[in-house]
Amino acid sequence: MFTALNAEDKTLPERAADQVISMIVDGTFKPGDKLPGEYDLAQRLNVGRSTVREAIKSLVSQNILEVRRGNGTFVKEHTGVADDPLGFRFAPDKLKLGLDLCEIRLMIEPDIAAIAAQKATEQEMDQMQEACDQVKSMIRRGENHMKCDVEFHTMLARCTRNSVIYTLIPIINQAIPYFINITKRELVEQTIETHQQVLDAVRARDGHAAAEAMRRHLEYNRRNIENAISMEREQSGK
Amino acid sequence: MFTALNAEDKTLPERAADQVISMIVDGTFKPGDKLPGEYDLAQRLNVGRSTVREAIKSLVSQNILEVRRGNGTFVKEHTGVADDPLGFRFAPDKLKLGLDLCEIRLMIEPDIAAIAAQKATEQEMDQMQEACDQVKSMIRRGENHMKCDVEFHTMLARCTRNSVIYTLIPIINQAIPYFINITKRELVEQTIETHQQVLDAVRARDGHAAAEAMRRHLEYNRRNIENAISMEREQSGK
Repeated sequence: MFTALNAEDKTLPERAADQVISMIVDGTFKPGDKLPGEYDLAQRLNVGRSTVREAIKSLVSQNILEVRRGNGTFVKEHTGVADDPLGFRFAPDKLKLGLDLCEIRLMIEPDIAAIAAQKATEQEMDQMQEACDQVKSMIRRGENHMKCDVEFHTMLARCTRNSVIYTLIPIINQAIPYFINITKRELVEQTIETHQQVLDAVRARDGHAAAEAMRRHLEYNRRNIENAISMEREQSGK
Repeated sequence: MFTALNAEDKTLPERAADQVISMIVDGTFKPGDKLPGEYDLAQRLNVGRSTVREAIKSLVSQNILEVRRGNGTFVKEHTGVADDPLGFRFAPDKLKLGLDLCEIRLMIEPDIAAIAAQKATEQEMDQMQEACDQVKSMIRRGENHMKCDVEFHTMLARCTRNSVIYTLIPIINQAIPYFINITKRELVEQTIETHQQVLDAVRARDGHAAAEAMRRHLEYNRRNIENAISMEREQSGK
């Protein structure tokens, strides 16, 4: 880990890529910023244009830059966080992965709720209420609410002011519906209720109650996934 | 997140890379395996050799494959886990990052210790004792024990049988000494003691005591980092 951060044994394009990374880290280029053109960048880094092209390609595949066609090269919003940073797609058993993800959520998210109860601003609580309401109406309309559900949990994670937690929660939470098909729409009613209980406890600044409500929410979630898994195992005759 | 896992809008090399990924996921190629040569792979994927070269380059930059010069192309051991998967090097304040990492460790690692107390095998406990002893002798010799320290915590994480936790713990734990200079060697004596307390509780199959010992260990660690941070802030006059 972090081997790529050491400077030895690097090719010219790798070193050029490192220079671009340094300029992002030191704030010269910020997330969302447009990079100078190939020619300017080559001059600035004192390398050839083909080296710049190679460096950009590598930075794109590392999710540090993105090329918007006909528009230019930009610094990505969640800079350097890969599409599947923890290699979930290489897990040999996706159902086991789902339960592993539930287990780690149960370790982290009750604490997140408790911290959010201390730190959330009024504005953040209003935004979380909107997310709650949207999940509710999507469930009622029979729509897939997963994206919005992840947003609610991510907003809560942001309230901790902990950048690692804020990065990690969407990675973990998005993976579950991606790898496990949770179809029992009739059961999601409890999602509405337990989300609201978490938020009500945050509003009441009651960390203990927020953590407990989150724990109930996640344990209910885990049971749903366990049910989905036994159904899937039955169907595949395992 | 996971956008790269969808098949639309992909170039030929990207699709070839996806095929290689599928062959890793379905077990055709396992971590550590050598891939067929460029020519064979091109035939197998029904694409040109330049497409294969491009695909391999992209898979290397995603830490899925590695090229060992003069030897061939191999599937990486921790397949698809990037060098800095959570983008820590882009954190604007590395000292704040260190404390954020401590906070998340305090959420996860006491639970890990408790689960390890239930699940660790005799052999694993012996291996952990070796790691403990090695940390101890390195500290006594005044050597940098960080790598070995991370190994102890990673072994404990492996005892949970949770692949996500096993992936995550080394990422989090390696980052702390990478970004924060913890120099107070005279203080690390307590590391020896608290590591041993965790392990003794695991051996006694006492989950509660293991969690408590881990909490003490991490809180002591956090104080060390807080001290390192205030020293660094004083020196830089912030």
